[in-house]
Amino acid sequence: MTRIAIYDTTLRDGSQGEGVNFSLQDKLLITTKLDDLGVDYVEGGYPLSNPKDAAYFRAVRDLPLEHARIAAFGMTRRRDIAAEDDTGMRALVAAGTPVVTVVGKTWDLHAREVLGVSLDENLRMIGDSVAFLAANVAEVVYDAEHFFDGYRNNPDYALETVRKAADAGAAWIALCDTNGGSLPEQVAEAVTAVAREVRVPLGIHTHNDGELAVANSLAAVRQGARQVQGTINGLGERCGNADLCSVIANLALKYPGFHALAPGKLAKLTEVSRFVYETANMNLRSGQAFVGSSAFAHKGGMHVHGVRKIAASYEHVDPTTVGNERRILVSELSGKSNIAEKLAEHDLDQDPDLLTRVLDRVQDLENAGYQFEAAEASFVLLVEKIAGRHREAFQSRGFRVSVAGDGDGDSLTEATVKLRVGEAAEHTVGEGDGPVDALDNALRKALEHHFPGLRTMHLVDYKVRVINARAGTAARVRVVIESSDQDAVWGTIGVSENVIEASWLALLDAFEYKLSKDTRKARPARPEAAAVS
Amino acid sequence: MTRIAIYDTTLRDGSQGEGVNFSLQDKLLITTKLDDLGVDYVEGGYPLSNPKDAAYFRAVRDLPLEHARIAAFGMTRRRDIAAEDDTGMRALVAAGTPVVTVVGKTWDLHAREVLGVSLDENLRMIGDSVAFLAANVAEVVYDAEHFFDGYRNNPDYALETVRKAADAGAAWIALCDTNGGSLPEQVAEAVTAVAREVRVPLGIHTHNDGELAVANSLAAVRQGARQVQGTINGLGERCGNADLCSVIANLALKYPGFHALAPGKLAKLTEVSRFVYETANMNLRSGQAFVGSSAFAHKGGMHVHGVRKIAASYEHVDPTTVGNERRILVSELSGKSNIAEKLAEHDLDQDPDLLTRVLDRVQDLENAGYQFEAAEASFVLLVEKIAGRHREAFQSRGFRVSVAGDGDGDSLTEATVKLRVGEAAEHTVGEGDGPVDALDNALRKALEHHFPGLRTMHLVDYKVRVINARAGTAARVRVVIESSDQDAVWGTIGVSENVIEASWLALLDAFEYKLSKDTRKARPARPEAAAVS
Repeated sequence: MTRIAIYDTTLRDGSQGEGVNFSLQDKLLITTKLDDLGVDYVEGGYPLSNPKDAAYFRAVRDLPLEHARIAAFGMTRRRDIAAEDDTGMRALVAAGTPVVTVVGKTWDLHAREVLGVSLDENLRMIGDSVAFLAANVAEVVYDAEHFFDGYRNNPDYALETVRKAADAGAAWIALCDTNGGSLPEQVAEAVTAVAREVRVPLGIHTHNDGELAVANSLAAVRQGARQVQGTINGLGERCGNADLCSVIANLALKYPGFHALAPGKLAKLTEVSRFVYETANMNLRSGQAFVGSSAFAHKGGMHVHGVRKIAASYEHVDPTTVGNERRILVSELSGKSNIAEKLAEHDLDQDPDLLTRVLDRVQDLENAGYQFEAAEASFVLLVEKIAGRHREAFQSRGFRVSVAGDGDGDSLTEATVKLRVGEAAEHTVGEGDGPVDALDNALRKALEHHFPGLRTMHLVDYKVRVINARAGTAARVRVVIESSDQDAVWGTIGVSENVIEASWLALLDAFEYKLSKDTRKARPARPEAAAVS
Repeated sequence: MTRIAIYDTTLRDGSQGEGVNFSLQDKLLITTKLDDLGVDYVEGGYPLSNPKDAAYFRAVRDLPLEHARIAAFGMTRRRDIAAEDDTGMRALVAAGTPVVTVVGKTWDLHAREVLGVSLDENLRMIGDSVAFLAANVAEVVYDAEHFFDGYRNNPDYALETVRKAADAGAAWIALCDTNGGSLPEQVAEAVTAVAREVRVPLGIHTHNDGELAVANSLAAVRQGARQVQGTINGLGERCGNADLCSVIANLALKYPGFHALAPGKLAKLTEVSRFVYETANMNLRSGQAFVGSSAFAHKGGMHVHGVRKIAASYEHVDPTTVGNERRILVSELSGKSNIAEKLAEHDLDQDPDLLTRVLDRVQDLENAGYQFEAAEASFVLLVEKIAGRHREAFQSRGFRVSVAGDGDGDSLTEATVKLRVGEAAEHTVGEGDGPVDALDNALRKALEHHFPGLRTMHLVDYKVRVINARAGTAARVRVVIESSDQDAVWGTIGVSENVIEASWLALLDAFEYKLSKDTRKARPARPEAAAVS
């Protein structure tokens, strides 16, 4: 079995992605998480580029890392200057990391036209920079920028640049598909050519502009590359870098000849993916390979039937190998088998009589426009109610919403709610930017002093769908609200001909679920993870 | 140059994706859009599975399609029954489409254990079904389910199943990587083996569970497959199908030997992608290859500098080839050329000064959350207003909406509107099933006696999207309303922090557009079709 080194650049190249912005604290938390996953290298930043990265390299020395080696990233020296006099070079050494990665130009056109240096000077810049770093740092990775474009344009020169880096003492030569436009067969051919030229082990660094980053990484590994660079969730500029989640899982599960990460680490993959999304404050991509929330979700009745008979029917790998889970979606195509599976998933009672009653009710609700796919919290509440186990924390006695708009685009929204909480009658009013916000505020005024735990809950997303579009405005409206607290995210649903009424129903479920969840937590609990929608 | 046929299954396999749910009207709109893009086949649904799909096949006959052939999808006949007696087979023929696609089992294990039939009966089911369909339908596509898993497990049997379909008269054999777990080298090897066995042209149908769907499609094409099946934006169960946007763009731009779509169609790709997201009420994936909003977005200063000097520095293809645009994230430069294109499309004035003013306004509105892709009627009104050519039929002086819900799920909604129509002041009240319905009714009371033409207009669809989901209920809301009359369908948009206010704005535009459209009709008119959103 050949070991493939995993080089993570989420914190450096990943942070070039649109909307990605890590604080210093975020970067340290992610470093710890990556180390825990067992990646071999963590590229932490570009010490010259900003003070936050410099602070990171100081702080990261105190992190108790088990396995990961921290790398600082920078460019080759500027032209016509000695490497030791270049501020960038000095910043790299000053970062004090065991690994330094330095990127140089491979593409003749790019060196000449963009950097504006002669091809000879570019070679000297590469050689001098790598030699200087190799004399001062334990391990130097040379990133050959635009390697594949350069190789297509001028193969001799491209090979000369990497030979230069090898001769100067680079420990790794990483070939970069900087523009992300190469095809797997082009990557395979070029890697083969480089492997004939240099004895230094090769790495591969791809981008996803052709949706081929993972395929390109695997093609390089098959031709001899022994290090894969990428980012968690494929974060990165434009279409992102190679998603290490997919690369790692494919290497581990599809290629008997290769392995990455230490034994037992693969099952942390889904958790690390979610953690990075959470830290980056980004919505997860449900259809993401291996780690997405839909990656093992089954909707069609035929597929559900097949998966229950033989898992491999419609699952390419066992979801637990990557720490993910199978989900049976309660959808319009659902039957008894879907519902049974759902009950099992939530550790809910499965007696046949209950199953029948739940199925009847779900079918009625689905005919009325409900869809529990993205609203599992409403489904759980429904089952608990049918089973007679739900303890109502409060009762709704009604609501009112009024919106007044002047002619100039300003509007005022006010909501009142009437609730019964045990013996107390609550009648409160809230304002808001819109009706849901106003209702949410009024509900909080009525409930937070009874249930202070509600303060940790907030609304994450709000979706509205018209169900029977043909009927126009009088059609039914489906509202799905996603809420979260410190340890879970849950979806609830409301359906009505009236968008406000539907929002109100979804909102009530969100509050009810949060309260019943907190109550269950006090009791010996089942894992909350299952409630994530 | 070899022509690769594009087979779109967004409406069938794509709708298996979590949270994907198309109305009948959505399906017809998407069909028109796909035809306009120039795909060769549109798989519209599964006639046996639900009444909506059956209604689609009736309605689609009246669509004036230029190029696309509609396919109905179904399974091989049930066991131990003649094909002509099977309800599924009969439903396929009854769909009345020029193409029928029938899926059969390739994988011995799956036929025996999941379907519970003998390997011989499975072969007969394939042969009988294809033969029956070939006798009754112009073109039969045979989808070999689980082909690659089957081929790995029992290559002889897998090949026998496809030979059976070929002998029975299938026009195409599409090899399906149903579980999405195959590697490109496995796909290449299996396709080569099949190409040696049958003379029928081959198709490839992949899923993205290993993040390799596009690479697998391309690998199959390189080994001789001549049809690629997939979905727009890669919608589909679990991790989705092969994204046709990536497949088409890679074939067109990376392989000189292949082409797909007719000349001039590739530049519609981004628009079609956005249209499908909008129609499916899904957020677009900014990092999507080729068509994503970040696909050509440059953030790093070095990259921006490089791109300005030589575009190929950090762009693998010219963004305009796929109808996308470069975005420089620091300076927020949006596309003048896009606007010019749009003006031309609507036969609107193109003088440079107007262009600049429209561009400025569109940029402001886009920053505020507007998106005109599905709301071209609002865009047309905007341009007419900026050009000083819009004749206001009425002026809004304000509105009020109140919703009162009792505790039992009943609610009462009332809206009042205040308008100025020429010299007349109108102040009317309407009730409705929901706020939009109530506002619509109040507006009609105020306007119909002035403009009887409004009676032919009705609301077709109403969509709500939260724009900055992270901010919860206080985020901005985008409402898109689709309206129609006897000869057109048009989309209008409103954005506000308040869903009611946003609905009101979209509703006003819908009425205004209808009135200005009727006025134009009295004058020598330009084709209304262009206004279809």
